[in-house]
Amino acid sequence: MRIQMESLFEPEAIAVIGASSDPNKWGHRILRNIINGGYAGRIYPVNPRAKSILGIKAYPSLTEITDQIDLVLICTPAEKAIDVVKECQKRNVKFAVVIPAGFSEVGEEGRIAEKELVRAAGRCRLVGPNTMGVMSTSKSLYAYMSLAKPRKGPVSFISQSGNLGTQILGRGQRQGIGFCRFVSSGNEADLTMADYLSFLARDNETGVVLSYIEGFKNAISFLRSAREVTRRKPLIVYKAGRTPVGVRAARSHCGALASQDEICEGAFLQVGCTRARSTEDLLDLAKAFSSLPLPSGRRVAILSWGGGWGVVGADSCYEKGFEVIALPPSVIEKIDALLPSYWSRGNPVDLVGSLDLEKHLGCLEILVANDGIDIVLALGTISGFPDFRKHDERFLARTIELVRKYKKPIMLVKMFEGYESEYLESHGSLIFPSPERAISALRKMYEYKRYLERAS
Amino acid sequence: MRIQMESLFEPEAIAVIGASSDPNKWGHRILRNIINGGYAGRIYPVNPRAKSILGIKAYPSLTEITDQIDLVLICTPAEKAIDVVKECQKRNVKFAVVIPAGFSEVGEEGRIAEKELVRAAGRCRLVGPNTMGVMSTSKSLYAYMSLAKPRKGPVSFISQSGNLGTQILGRGQRQGIGFCRFVSSGNEADLTMADYLSFLARDNETGVVLSYIEGFKNAISFLRSAREVTRRKPLIVYKAGRTPVGVRAARSHCGALASQDEICEGAFLQVGCTRARSTEDLLDLAKAFSSLPLPSGRRVAILSWGGGWGVVGADSCYEKGFEVIALPPSVIEKIDALLPSYWSRGNPVDLVGSLDLEKHLGCLEILVANDGIDIVLALGTISGFPDFRKHDERFLARTIELVRKYKKPIMLVKMFEGYESEYLESHGSLIFPSPERAISALRKMYEYKRYLERAS
Repeated sequence: MRIQMESLFEPEAIAVIGASSDPNKWGHRILRNIINGGYAGRIYPVNPRAKSILGIKAYPSLTEITDQIDLVLICTPAEKAIDVVKECQKRNVKFAVVIPAGFSEVGEEGRIAEKELVRAAGRCRLVGPNTMGVMSTSKSLYAYMSLAKPRKGPVSFISQSGNLGTQILGRGQRQGIGFCRFVSSGNEADLTMADYLSFLARDNETGVVLSYIEGFKNAISFLRSAREVTRRKPLIVYKAGRTPVGVRAARSHCGALASQDEICEGAFLQVGCTRARSTEDLLDLAKAFSSLPLPSGRRVAILSWGGGWGVVGADSCYEKGFEVIALPPSVIEKIDALLPSYWSRGNPVDLVGSLDLEKHLGCLEILVANDGIDIVLALGTISGFPDFRKHDERFLARTIELVRKYKKPIMLVKMFEGYESEYLESHGSLIFPSPERAISALRKMYEYKRYLERAS
Repeated sequence: MRIQMESLFEPEAIAVIGASSDPNKWGHRILRNIINGGYAGRIYPVNPRAKSILGIKAYPSLTEITDQIDLVLICTPAEKAIDVVKECQKRNVKFAVVIPAGFSEVGEEGRIAEKELVRAAGRCRLVGPNTMGVMSTSKSLYAYMSLAKPRKGPVSFISQSGNLGTQILGRGQRQGIGFCRFVSSGNEADLTMADYLSFLARDNETGVVLSYIEGFKNAISFLRSAREVTRRKPLIVYKAGRTPVGVRAARSHCGALASQDEICEGAFLQVGCTRARSTEDLLDLAKAFSSLPLPSGRRVAILSWGGGWGVVGADSCYEKGFEVIALPPSVIEKIDALLPSYWSRGNPVDLVGSLDLEKHLGCLEILVANDGIDIVLALGTISGFPDFRKHDERFLARTIELVRKYKKPIMLVKMFEGYESEYLESHGSLIFPSPERAISALRKMYEYKRYLERAS
């Protein structure tokens, strides 16, 4: 029953039907993104009226290409898509991504056309229709309309909205999250969310799965696939269409049937999904799960550069069920050797305005190394102020080393956005914008760990 | 009972005691910030061992200055502060900002010293001790340790944490929020949160008041002052120290007594405070209240460039008690003339991928002009993609005009952060990072409007 999707995500040769030299056409934008993305395979633009497009030899039709094509991107108008998928089927193409809209999301006539499309495709499996495309960083394949170009990493993302999905990818890119596969699943006429999840559960490149869902084609299949994922890796779900007006909006947009939220809530919990409460939460969770080990307990030490943030962090920990422990005597003794005599000896550990980086890092390691501490939250030690840029970069680099060494989560919170840093951007997926958001993500990690313990 | 604070926020002449040429000293940093900030008054550095500091003539003591000093910044160590405030009292200085820590926040001895400090100051009123300083944009006075330099505007902010307060200012600056007064209130040995609020209630420069609170010196005075504010302008409160561990952290940090959160919740509600649920929420609310009129009802129209965000926005509206109305026939008719025939005629109004700016703006005005619509939420019409920079800037400029013309809130959500724009930064306080956060702020605006109706 499981569908092999290697040809979709690791295609050796692709064709773009409806490729165009006109920069306003999707058939131009997608081809350009594929070329600019540095796709590691063979590209065949198809257009009956062009000899070459964007510097690549063009073909009048799929039939004229002698190479074996793994993946076809269909950028023609909706009414031509059926003829193209018939050709795909004849040429043994394994996957076709049907970009055009105008199918089940526009009413009865569209629904009929969509069924016909699936029937015509036969053994060729379809992504979409009404999709913005697919992405797979392992092949440097950016076969979509978006200009987002996230870096390589463990997060895969299936989105029932193309716009929202690609924009979240773009935001994730800015936040240092590494991505692996992305699919804008569109109307899911053939391949559904459940099919993609089932593949990603066993995909070795994928370590964390994100999913934006407006409705289910088949809720039972979804839950079965979700459980396949959660037994192996975290599955983070944002469910839109939770309310009557959201459902109405979703219907006109992706043709899916949204469902009662109370039922979703219970079902998600049962199969171990991590539920994102907002679109920002979705990325916070992607960051946390992809860059940090799961916490082995609830005992937190807070390191803070500035008292107020320590208070906010302590409140957040308590409200989310974490223990801000009294510091063990051995920890106090070691920190005594680093900080001025008047430090509070409490948790949060306030760095009392010290500007000495080695002392900051010393305190951090004392805390994370201690057996009585499961988690360290470091507030304001990444300052974000231009004067502290080198300090910030070194603190981050050392934190990444300590996370690896002690296999415990260390969450950093940057208090200001004063400069651009390529290093902070590309390695910053353990930096959060506020203590509240860091601890909220940590809580979900702890819940997932508990789920894994119960499920094993 | 009300304290005149003009000399604190609009001083004609200031002295910095403990001014220093050493860049690592607070007496250097604060003086430098005052000078670089372009303070519109006379500056007197005081240091017994320097002829001039940072190019300005220095004086050996306050007594040697013949000018009338309105405001003194005390940057000496704690033990010297008492002598300085005695001199302030003698020289009829109206306000002194006591920067050093080491008073009631460090225990019994410090508590005694703090009482002595207040007594010694006599008629001279004290900010602090244990404060990062004050700011007032109307005088270009940046008399604090922070490098934040927010632009001029209607938001005033009193913070019981200096670090958190100034970092929030810095973030606000990046989000296009205009500020007026800022005080890091420190230990509040003399002037308290209640005093500052009471002044800001009647301060014509201030349109919105923010407050970060860890505890109350006198809860009754606070509530009285809070009500003075809320009858005239919104008061947004973030209360930290909500939990036992937060209270413990607050005690070691600012010496204040935190209080039970259930009691705060009820009291805040009674006096019409708008409660921020997170540090990010605090700035979201500052943006919303300072840049938009209060909504006169709950009827929302959503304009969306991309279906998924429309679903997320519709869900948020419903969950926060807003009506995503069916579009009035006159609105549909007018939009028919702008969008392709296949547009959904529903709310959210999906711009169906159109790239034509004039059509976007046309739809926006049709919605905001309609009597049946109280609020417009525009999602993704500010794209944030570099290719759309001019489009984005023009859309924002026109939105600001429409808000003024129709006196209704229009909230914009930017979906991506692809480029820097001075214009978007300086005018972008009606741009929110997600539909959820925009609608959450809108809900608080609606509640405040209801409070004003009940209170009048």
